[in-house]
Amino acid sequence: GHELLKQERAKSKLPVEQLSQFLFTRGGLERKHGILAILEKEKVFYKSQNYFAGRVDRFETALARAKRLRQLTVQHGWSVEDFRAATELISEPGPYGLHESMFLITLRDQGTPQQREKFYKPALNYEIIGCYAQTELGHGSNVRGLETTATWNAEDQTFTIHSPHLTASKWWIGSLGRTANHAVVMAQLVIAGRSHGPHPFVVQIRDLKTHEPLENIHIGDIGPKFGYNTMDNGFLLFNNVKIPHFNMLARFSSVDPQTNRYMRPSSPSLVYGTLTWVRSTIVMQAGGVLARGVTIATRYCAVRRQFQDRDAPEWEKGENQVLNYTMVQIRLLTLLAATYALHFTGKGMMQLYETNQNKMSQDVGQVGSAQRGAGPEETHSGSDLLADLHATSCGLKSLASTIAAEGLETCRRACGGHGYSSFSGIGPWFADYLPTTTWEGDNYMLSQQVARYLLKSARSVMKGEKPTNDTTQILSNFLAKSDIGAAFDVLGRDEDIVAAFAWRTAFLTFEALKHRDEQKKAWNDLLVDFYRLSRAHSQYLVVKNFYETLQSPSLTAELDPETVTVMYKLFRLHSLHTLENEASEFYTSSAVTVRQIQLARTSAVMRLLEELRPHAVRLVDAWDFPDWQLDSSLGRYDGKVYEDMFYRASEQNPLNAITVDPYPDSPVLFKKNDSAQFKSKL
Amino acid sequence: GHELLKQERAKSKLPVEQLSQFLFTRGGLERKHGILAILEKEKVFYKSQNYFAGRVDRFETALARAKRLRQLTVQHGWSVEDFRAATELISEPGPYGLHESMFLITLRDQGTPQQREKFYKPALNYEIIGCYAQTELGHGSNVRGLETTATWNAEDQTFTIHSPHLTASKWWIGSLGRTANHAVVMAQLVIAGRSHGPHPFVVQIRDLKTHEPLENIHIGDIGPKFGYNTMDNGFLLFNNVKIPHFNMLARFSSVDPQTNRYMRPSSPSLVYGTLTWVRSTIVMQAGGVLARGVTIATRYCAVRRQFQDRDAPEWEKGENQVLNYTMVQIRLLTLLAATYALHFTGKGMMQLYETNQNKMSQDVGQVGSAQRGAGPEETHSGSDLLADLHATSCGLKSLASTIAAEGLETCRRACGGHGYSSFSGIGPWFADYLPTTTWEGDNYMLSQQVARYLLKSARSVMKGEKPTNDTTQILSNFLAKSDIGAAFDVLGRDEDIVAAFAWRTAFLTFEALKHRDEQKKAWNDLLVDFYRLSRAHSQYLVVKNFYETLQSPSLTAELDPETVTVMYKLFRLHSLHTLENEASEFYTSSAVTVRQIQLARTSAVMRLLEELRPHAVRLVDAWDFPDWQLDSSLGRYDGKVYEDMFYRASEQNPLNAITVDPYPDSPVLFKKNDSAQFKSKL
Ligand SMILES: Cc1cc2nc3c(=O)[nH]c(=O)nc-3n(C[C@H](O)[C@H](O)[C@H](O)COP(=O)(O)OP(=O)(O)OC[C@H]3O[C@@H](n4cnc5c(N)ncnc54)[C@H](O)[C@@H]3O)c2cc1C
Ligand SMILES: Cc1cc2nc3c(=O)[nH]c(=O)nc-3n(C[C@H](O)[C@H](O)[C@H](O)COP(=O)(O)OP(=O)(O)OC[C@H]3O[C@@H](n4cnc5c(N)ncnc54)[C@H](O)[C@@H]3O)c2cc1C
Repeated sequence: GHELLKQERAKSKLPVEQLSQFLFTRGGLERKHGILAILEKEKVFYKSQNYFAGRVDRFETALARAKRLRQLTVQHGWSVEDFRAATELISEPGPYGLHESMFLITLRDQGTPQQREKFYKPALNYEIIGCYAQTELGHGSNVRGLETTATWNAEDQTFTIHSPHLTASKWWIGSLGRTANHAVVMAQLVIAGRSHGPHPFVVQIRDLKTHEPLENIHIGDIGPKFGYNTMDNGFLLFNNVKIPHFNMLARFSSVDPQTNRYMRPSSPSLVYGTLTWVRSTIVMQAGGVLARGVTIATRYCAVRRQFQDRDAPEWEKGENQVLNYTMVQIRLLTLLAATYALHFTGKGMMQLYETNQNKMSQDVGQVGSAQRGAGPEETHSGSDLLADLHATSCGLKSLASTIAAEGLETCRRACGGHGYSSFSGIGPWFADYLPTTTWEGDNYMLSQQVARYLLKSARSVMKGEKPTNDTTQILSNFLAKSDIGAAFDVLGRDEDIVAAFAWRTAFLTFEALKHRDEQKKAWNDLLVDFYRLSRAHSQYLVVKNFYETLQSPSLTAELDPETVTVMYKLFRLHSLHTLENEASEFYTSSAVTVRQIQLARTSAVMRLLEELRPHAVRLVDAWDFPDWQLDSSLGRYDGKVYEDMFYRASEQNPLNAITVDPYPDSPVLFKKNDSAQFKSKL
Repeated sequence: GHELLKQERAKSKLPVEQLSQFLFTRGGLERKHGILAILEKEKVFYKSQNYFAGRVDRFETALARAKRLRQLTVQHGWSVEDFRAATELISEPGPYGLHESMFLITLRDQGTPQQREKFYKPALNYEIIGCYAQTELGHGSNVRGLETTATWNAEDQTFTIHSPHLTASKWWIGSLGRTANHAVVMAQLVIAGRSHGPHPFVVQIRDLKTHEPLENIHIGDIGPKFGYNTMDNGFLLFNNVKIPHFNMLARFSSVDPQTNRYMRPSSPSLVYGTLTWVRSTIVMQAGGVLARGVTIATRYCAVRRQFQDRDAPEWEKGENQVLNYTMVQIRLLTLLAATYALHFTGKGMMQLYETNQNKMSQDVGQVGSAQRGAGPEETHSGSDLLADLHATSCGLKSLASTIAAEGLETCRRACGGHGYSSFSGIGPWFADYLPTTTWEGDNYMLSQQVARYLLKSARSVMKGEKPTNDTTQILSNFLAKSDIGAAFDVLGRDEDIVAAFAWRTAFLTFEALKHRDEQKKAWNDLLVDFYRLSRAHSQYLVVKNFYETLQSPSLTAELDPETVTVMYKLFRLHSLHTLENEASEFYTSSAVTVRQIQLARTSAVMRLLEELRPHAVRLVDAWDFPDWQLDSSLGRYDGKVYEDMFYRASEQNPLNAITVDPYPDSPVLFKKNDSAQFKSKL
């Protein structure tokens, strides 16, 4: 193992450090390694028993870690970025997770200055600990359908929070099950019998001393999950619980206690901003999420040897590294290319977000508060920029998290039998990541938002309006050429690849528009087309972002020419592989010919695999995952795969402390059970 | 929930019972329900704590279940089929798993009569309990590369079993970790310094009384896995352990103790048969495996309501069942069609297997013993029939288990957030099923066997040999028409669908042949093409099997005309959806036109979804899964989804018996921990 990875690293001259710095900046890398040095020393963060413990024990450890992390944060005065680096290294959802994200953000963004003083400040100090309770047993995507009510009582200026049915029970709420003593509760605001839709309320749910649930509040953990078992996702039912007027987060809307009237002051759409920001973060992280799996699988497949090459000459003894098989390469190296594509796209997405945030500070685009719904055409208009940002974040969130989730399973499977062991480190990571495809907008449903935006843009282009952004630009280009057609030299010129993807988006958009506006097809009948359209458009955005990164001056400034060449190859591999996978849409739109696809498939992609193969290990090294973070036998930097597997199985495994009585007629199951000793080892 | 499923069942007149009987026969259904009645009464089989317990506890319960199951088998005199029905109902890998399958089968098939007397008989009675130890830390797919040695000692007529390196450790061996006291060990037979390849040896590994490992034998459980945690997959190392001559399983090859010569008597290839049989079983089961997920998701999506239909008239109040959204249908109903397709294919596969077994009893096709290798072209030839059976079982095993595994995850995701809960019942089932894509021939590698066979068949057709089976037939057909081309009316005539799939297989086969034989491309350069070819061919086999079932007289005899019509629709949905997913190969081979694909996509498939929608719940009901088997809140027959979720979360969840101290500065984690009480509840 060790020797093989050494050889791999010797085969390529790719400057790993330079590349890492290009990806993460020198400051980012230093930050990570500084924090790692601190975490590594803390016994509570040792990962060795993670894969063995049962749920209650894991939760206990996770709580201990969350506390320690908070203590270290205070002790070292860590910034938000430092803290995020630490959680990435720990790589485990923890009981403070939702307190530290949605609870704090909501208090900050939706509270008035007085409310921030009363709630946000103590929350920042962990004097109160909260969660964000929106989803219910019966409603998730459809936020407007929430059943929990907050009824305004004019007589004593309070709200009554109530769960009228079982399905109104809050459900899935992170940090709620055991940990939180407060919740931001989304509930239907009812004034004088009239509902004004869901609004956020701050509700204390547990006693600050005893930590027992308050009267008329029923709380619990919702039970085991496919992953995320270190987090106490919880349920919450209210039986007519009164809270003061002050507890409705009132920055955007409020109830006037004098007139009992509902007030909705105009203001910049920061709510909207939060959701876009959360989605952008998912896009930003997807490359790294996938890169963990790719790192592990690539290293392991360079260490793993199986069979002799059947065409190898007699004298070439020894088994072949499985990474040499093209059927392994087509799975792993294409995903390796995808990690880079997603990383650059994530960066682009974040920049777009920030540019827009700045512009928005001046803007006064008023939007509604319940944007999680699927309701595509009915939503707010907002400014043009905002709409573009919104659609981009929806489409890319959907595509990027799908690629990452499915890619991780591909990596796991590429490791053969050993991929199935928890020691691979891929399975547990995959299981924890999976909900990302469902939350913050289900990946299938988000595609409706993208389609809606593209349809709207297409309508404006059809009306002859001037292009105002890239989307309307590519639609106009297509329209202008619709009588001439186009020919893209996708195998010869990189910019033609981008253009071919743009062409396909535009083609599918106008097809969908025809179905909807001319043929008057029902929205529901078009959902499958919309999904394809959203996917196509998002793939275009990824390809474009990758290409633009390659064209940026910083690239040639920071990377030597050979590395730049390798980056171009990754770009081509990602784009052409996507193109051949989606071949039929590319034909149908006449963006490319059948012959081009055939050549891409049998020739260009295969050649790129061969050219990239020698750099594979260095390309994953550049992602710079410390072993401590990966916690994987298969993905060890030093390649000591088998030794580590064996050590973990034989030395750390509680099941080996039991002796069974194997005979069916004997009622004795365990003759001996010393497995508890492993718990105390921690 | 309850009302909605009632309405669903009222909407369709599909005779569920009749259809179930067609699928499973009346006898099969009666068997299942008889056994269910027995299992249900046994407390040890209660599933309620399955999702909560940690590994050691789960293993303990699994052992108790395995014992009880064996006792019941004896008590009721259950047949092999009864036993299999019981394990399907229990749906949990157990500690006797490999004893009851590969250990017994190997002793039976590879032992001499004397060896059967000595080992097989007591094993049948669980006096000895065994496992099948082939895979090692360093070698799985490449069986010839195994490192464990069995060295013949002429002086005392014994073998020395030895593990020369760490990577020679047996690994992944089911039932070995804690349970077995014997193992069939595959080891390199070495006589006088010369290796004769891997052979099976029976080795006692633990004391029959104390159950402690014997001297010089190191055993343990390999640790936690993505699933399969109720099974003790183990490792095993030998330090020069001597076993008698008698313990080499000698039906096919042996060492003559007088001459010290290696003997390989000619005999029918039963070893080969075992592997084919195991693969055929996987094909047989894939439909049912997937159907569990489809049943759960379909019922839940009929109960789950979210959003109003955006084009629904004002007066139509209430939220839409998510099963009405076409984007849900395209995921679930196509998988529903796949369950039927796979079921009929599995039946066909089993018939093919049995026909061949009968023919083979007369045959004397001698083949090697280590057929698990990927080594495609080098392997034995065997008879024509055998080769076809082998390729079919490889291709279908690969395709069917991939469809089932990936389909289960699609089902889980279709359930939105609740799909992520263990109570969905899909996640745990998916996790346990996943290794099926890797074992008994990794799904990617099996494709090489299929390609090799197709290439061979194509060569014989090119030489002008007469077609001897369906494979050579479709290749000849294609060749005969290669100057004329073909036109298949895939949207108009069902038999043309089958023909188009055959055409595509043939096209890809001759393309691959050109690459290999004319262009002399390296085998490794063609692996990706081979994978595509194998997939295409296997899809053809599924479509053909489905179609043949529809054409069989038993269908019209057993099903009423309306049900037959629904079956045809399922056939079209499965085939046309596959066709549009693989569109580019269908174009490239000129089997269909671009326009046909477009029509399939936008019109035919969408219409089929609409037509099948009303029958969805009854079509899954016909799979006849008892609630007890599914163990799923979401998939309950009565639709009481939310009540069950809530009950499990609030009443059965050990995490709710702890109270935490939530403040970061407090060293106390759990103020109270009563979670142990849940263990005793069992
Ligand atoms: C691990 C985890 C943690 C979570 N943490 C929190 C938390 O802290 N706080 C919180 O408030 N929530 C939380 N959630 C809930 C999460 O936000 C929701 O599960 C998510 O929004 C999906 O909603 P749903 O479950 O209602 O899916 P549903 O909307 O019920 O979706 C079910 C299916 O129907 C389809 N569908 C639904 N509507 C349409 C439509 N209009 N058109 C087409 N298809 C449709 C979907 O695609 C999906 O296939 C969490 C969930 C998980 C899994
Ligand atoms: C849950 C579980 C239970 C098991 N139980 C048993 C048991 O009871 N007894 C037993 O003996 N074994 C058992 N096994 C082992 C199992 O049979 C092997 O894991 C399986 O055969 C795959 O072999 P491998 O792990 O060596 O994969 P590898 O061969 O190492 O495969 C690794 C990767 O390399 C690729 N690859 C390898 N060779 C080639 C090639 N020539 N061409 C192209 N690609 C290639 C594969 O596609 C894969 O992606 C079990 C495994 C699991 C996961």
